Amino acid sequence: MIIRAIGFDADDTLWHNENIFSLTHEKYRALLSAYAGPADVEPRLYATEMKNLRHFGYGIKGFTLSMIETAIELTGGRITAREIQTIIDFAHEMREQPVQLLEGAAETVRALAASRPLLLITKGDLFDQESKIAQSGLAEHFRHVEILSEKDEEAYRRVLVRHGIAPHQFLMVGNSFRSDILPVVALGGVGVHVPYHLTWAHEREGEERVADTPGVFRAERIDELPGILARLEAGG
Amino acid sequence: MIIRAIGFDADDTLWHNENIFSLTHEKYRALLSAYAGPADVEPRLYATEMKNLRHFGYGIKGFTLSMIETAIELTGGRITAREIQTIIDFAHEMREQPVQLLEGAAETVRALAASRPLLLITKGDLFDQESKIAQSGLAEHFRHVEILSEKDEEAYRRVLVRHGIAPHQFLMVGNSFRSDILPVVALGGVGVHVPYHLTWAHEREGEERVADTPGVFRAERIDELPGILARLEAGG
Repeated sequence: MIIRAIGFDADDTLWHNENIFSLTHEKYRALLSAYAGPADVEPRLYATEMKNLRHFGYGIKGFTLSMIETAIELTGGRITAREIQTIIDFAHEMREQPVQLLEGAAETVRALAASRPLLLITKGDLFDQESKIAQSGLAEHFRHVEILSEKDEEAYRRVLVRHGIAPHQFLMVGNSFRSDILPVVALGGVGVHVPYHLTWAHEREGEERVADTPGVFRAERIDELPGILARLEAGG
Repeated sequence: MIIRAIGFDADDTLWHNENIFSLTHEKYRALLSAYAGPADVEPRLYATEMKNLRHFGYGIKGFTLSMIETAIELTGGRITAREIQTIIDFAHEMREQPVQLLEGAAETVRALAASRPLLLITKGDLFDQESKIAQSGLAEHFRHVEILSEKDEEAYRRVLVRHGIAPHQFLMVGNSFRSDILPVVALGGVGVHVPYHLTWAHEREGEERVADTPGVFRAERIDELPGILARLEAGG
């Protein structure tokens, strides 16, 4: 098997992301603690996010609007304007978080870029993603950067056609089984799943099937990737 | 002069957009009328938008967060959670507005697509823009679609390099002097400015210079474009 191009997911694959959301969830639960218990907050917030996904897409701004909506609903309108301002401040704080690369990410990207074209394929808010890519210091190693609104089979198909990459010669690495692995494997490519210690429930869909899907490999850390690739190409 | 490729802006060039924002401004002023006069609301909202631009970028979600922040500030925190929910409802209503093409836009795009590659070059929220492009029914006429976070000289330079287009053979048409005309003309291209009856103050920057800038043409309606192009190429 020959892999001609490698796609990398960004959030929680190259750099930490979900930990920033997770911290905000914590602050949000604390803010609402006078009104509702944490067991009530999380399912309601998740339900609002799912309802709003088709209007707002992924990213900090949509998440913030969902936090505000949920807070109004959960408190029966008793939440104060000041508390809502605190929620908006969470958004500013999230935006200001510096990009923190995952261990081994920079070395792996640098090493693999020498052997074949790399693509950065991420989804979410264009504005958020562009500034994280610029901040990461890794942009120069990627031949192409694709920021998509959704990472499904059709979206990957379009990216591969645009860059003239045959699906069976494409390997995608990422932490989300739903967005990084499943659609690529469905197209005939190879997926390397590197779980992140925190993953949003929405992205874990289908994860339990990881063991018995052909074309799916699993790594504990991203720097196992060169080894997996070498074994794949040696036919092992 | 030979024009090898034509770029089209989308919002307020191919379809109405600012009228949706304008209507929301009206509803917003009405909502806040118990707290503040319209003369106080608009400058404060604009100031918040400018402050938030570097955090939130362009688009409905960022605009909504700015409306909420401004409302809290303007009312000294007296705005109620229900009223803030009304502001979030504005965002949902904006998203639900059907795309309305400007007069002559579909015919012009169709006619010009037969003669040379067209690019759709728009800025703003990836999610908003993709759904408007899909809804417009015009997507098939564009060789490339570029959704950018900012339309400045550097962003256009990158787009032209990526598609192998020489700047002096590129014509861009749009309603925003700041985002569609000035950067393209600075690169050596041609700009055709088609003003929209409503244009956000931020996008009007530099508009007063339109008459005396070489490489800038002005049209009242987008369907004047084939005529302008014919005259340009005939050396007129």
